[in-house]
Amino acid sequence: MSPVPPLHPSLASLAFLLGTWAGSGTGEYPTIDPFAYNESITFSHVGKPFLAYSQGTRASDDGRPLHAETGYWRCPSPGRIEVVLAHPTGVVEVEEGTIEDGTITLTTVHVARTSTAKDVTSLTRVLRFTHDQGASVLHYTVAMGAVGVPETHHLAATLTREP
Amino acid sequence: MSPVPPLHPSLASLAFLLGTWAGSGTGEYPTIDPFAYNESITFSHVGKPFLAYSQGTRASDDGRPLHAETGYWRCPSPGRIEVVLAHPTGVVEVEEGTIEDGTITLTTVHVARTSTAKDVTSLTRVLRFTHDQGASVLHYTVAMGAVGVPETHHLAATLTREP
Repeated sequence: MSPVPPLHPSLASLAFLLGTWAGSGTGEYPTIDPFAYNESITFSHVGKPFLAYSQGTRASDDGRPLHAETGYWRCPSPGRIEVVLAHPTGVVEVEEGTIEDGTITLTTVHVARTSTAKDVTSLTRVLRFTHDQGASVLHYTVAMGAVGVPETHHLAATLTREP
Repeated sequence: MSPVPPLHPSLASLAFLLGTWAGSGTGEYPTIDPFAYNESITFSHVGKPFLAYSQGTRASDDGRPLHAETGYWRCPSPGRIEVVLAHPTGVVEVEEGTIEDGTITLTTVHVARTSTAKDVTSLTRVLRFTHDQGASVLHYTVAMGAVGVPETHHLAATLTREP
């Protein structure tokens, strides 16, 4: 509708996230079989003090859709990150953390669920950004507490930013 | 990546939402000046038991981006609706309600905020769907409790589904 304005100054430290990232990962949890997935993550902006974030994964074997998330990333002060997310499983969460030396660490500070959603209680994400042969690379891990299991390693994936 | 599969059977009563809705509305609140906006709402699906939802508004006068929301809609049992939403203001919410005779009524059951977000405490949405000269029409109102103000009328808009 309108041309994209300059990035909001508060987001300078997150500017490198903008665009689409694609890659693959593996998931495991004590209550399920291990699985492999392909993932796409997109960050965009409209000139206001947040990045819009959306993510989707599909099974590596048959391409069926697995997880998705959508929300917004904010940087209220230098080095601090706030993330608000909705999950199609009926979960919303607020994550807060830091960005330092190419590593973003986020921990759930609030989680809420619909009446029929599974009992997810916490997520901790560590995202590490590097450069490899000119490509921007994201490697992340997610630990999750859910359905009575204390926080346990759940996901690991590596993505590169599309040119 | 894959062709769109059939709509999940649990969402049959929400099938009419699918697609993009566009229109305009007005906003007011005791703490701000009244404003007019244009809005676009999109519902999509991937064959799983949720609709993906995203929304954006722009000021009628100069097109600057105003609000946005993103999340998912679920229909866990006939007539019942669960919505999980993230707002770029640093707010997440769970809304639950009903669909009956072309009217969806949703009320906040959980709200959570980042450390720096404004104090939004509740939202109540009423969405009425009608048909007018062959077009599908959505008229909604939103009442909000925030920044110490009890729940008060905030938004009213009318949109039509794009062909």
